[in-house]
Amino acid sequence: MLTHTHVRPIEWGDCDPAGIVFHPRYLAYFDHCTNLLFAEAGFDLASLQERFAVVGYPVVDLRGRFLVPCRYGDEVRIETRVAEFRNTSFDVRHLLHRGEVLAVEATVTRVWAGPHPHDSQRLQGRPVPETVRMALGRSDGEGVEPRR
Amino acid sequence: MLTHTHVRPIEWGDCDPAGIVFHPRYLAYFDHCTNLLFAEAGFDLASLQERFAVVGYPVVDLRGRFLVPCRYGDEVRIETRVAEFRNTSFDVRHLLHRGEVLAVEATVTRVWAGPHPHDSQRLQGRPVPETVRMALGRSDGEGVEPRR
Amino acid sequence: MLTHTHVRPIEWGDCDPAGIVFHPRYLAYFDHCTNLLFAEAGFDLASLQERFAVVGYPVVDLRGRFLVPCRYGDEVRIETRVAEFRNTSFDVRHLLHRGEVLAVEATVTRVWAGPHPHDSQRLQGRPVPETVRMALGRSDGEGVEPRR
Amino acid sequence: MLTHTHVRPIEWGDCDPAGIVFHPRYLAYFDHCTNLLFAEAGFDLASLQERFAVVGYPVVDLRGRFLVPCRYGDEVRIETRVAEFRNTSFDVRHLLHRGEVLAVEATVTRVWAGPHPHDSQRLQGRPVPETVRMALGRSDGEGVEPRR
Repeated sequence: MLTHTHVRPIEWGDCDPAGIVFHPRYLAYFDHCTNLLFAEAGFDLASLQERFAVVGYPVVDLRGRFLVPCRYGDEVRIETRVAEFRNTSFDVRHLLHRGEVLAVEATVTRVWAGPHPHDSQRLQGRPVPETVRMALGRSDGEGVEPRR
Repeated sequence: MLTHTHVRPIEWGDCDPAGIVFHPRYLAYFDHCTNLLFAEAGFDLASLQERFAVVGYPVVDLRGRFLVPCRYGDEVRIETRVAEFRNTSFDVRHLLHRGEVLAVEATVTRVWAGPHPHDSQRLQGRPVPETVRMALGRSDGEGVEPRR
Repeated sequence: MLTHTHVRPIEWGDCDPAGIVFHPRYLAYFDHCTNLLFAEAGFDLASLQERFAVVGYPVVDLRGRFLVPCRYGDEVRIETRVAEFRNTSFDVRHLLHRGEVLAVEATVTRVWAGPHPHDSQRLQGRPVPETVRMALGRSDGEGVEPRR
Repeated sequence: MLTHTHVRPIEWGDCDPAGIVFHPRYLAYFDHCTNLLFAEAGFDLASLQERFAVVGYPVVDLRGRFLVPCRYGDEVRIETRVAEFRNTSFDVRHLLHRGEVLAVEATVTRVWAGPHPHDSQRLQGRPVPETVRMALGRSDGEGVEPRR
């Protein structure tokens, strides 16, 4: 699978009074990394509505493990790839390392979603287009299993 | 188990360009609800260090399901309780309803953590004090299983 | 002028490693308070587009003074009112007290803005409707100058 | 004056339902840029307490102008420098460009602050050390007045 690597410094404003990253901020990092992965594959979130009549790929399920705290001044490396495509949903896998240490890992399930035909307040899953599957699923030399 | 109910309006700044709550914000809500639950039980996060020589109860694992999107102008009701105590960790269960609809549910595992004796960059689990277990575990009339 | 008073606890996730509120969070509080003020006057942000063909009232200028730090566990009281209407813009004044102490004050200039007729990436000021001026400008008994 | 240039993509989670950057996020960007500027000059925020017995340089006053909205997918360039040193405080000037367009400008006054000797809840200004003034005040070839 295509893997996107994002290097990012921990910002002061991402940390809480215990001096460690406030855990919801990791999920914001991972959201950004998912968008970077799709953009690298040629599918910029801002253009999805026009190209595929979907509003995006909202999160429906997530599982995260926080193994080692990170702090202001740390630099982290986040590897992101699609771990599995299903019909209308897919799992995105994120591995966040601080140096050689795996600090956070998460699997986030997202739905390829358009407006619901009968209820403007809801969204409805759509089959993930084959062109998207192909682009995200391609191996690119980096695409071997990220080290754990 | 003691259950804390928190009613909260969705703020404009909590929502993203799709018009729905940016999912990491739900985790920030739940973090706040956990602190409110502990405060209601008599254990204010700001006083834990002094009373128990712990820095807090950082998150080590979380699982969330996002069933229905919420938007600016919605008011949500979040019910929070400890679902299970183990020796040094515990699971906090959050149910977020918009009206009668369950919109988000999450189970967050936290560790009762003090400074690591040999490494200032790490934290170390401590046994959850019996007084804390008792206060959070008490039934309070509200403490029956929250409606789903 | 109509004054909205909002009481709010400082959340753990609003604070930084120095243990004090990360200052951008105050601006998020004030944004929410502005929306509450307009909602109280009968103009919910979510309905403005439909009623007045504007997208909202984005910020064009702000001035803030941070006099006393606030911390997790503090409860703050924010008084918000429109200080002055001009043709297409207006100033919103926010006073944040911790107990009897004025901790933060801000004046935020906003524009009553619709889509720009020739450039979808820009916004364009529109005259603030008289009905909005009247509703926000009314005295309501609370509307005397908030104490300093 | 030493000028730090930071290039940054606008993230999805930084934007609101109007599709534009939620203005408090700009202040978070600028906070990070201030830390990057000080780090470039050799004064990492995390080490200030140990080296100078200060807790940091909290914000006491800010003025911002938001001229052009930025959106998800935009890349912005932020130039940051100290505009003026006074005895215990200093002004940091931020210019945020989207392409060639000045989108946001801000002047943020910060205090070189240590713990208050008689009140642990307060901070107290300290004279900015000469070594800090020298390092931030040096011209570095880039240090000419950033273009407006």
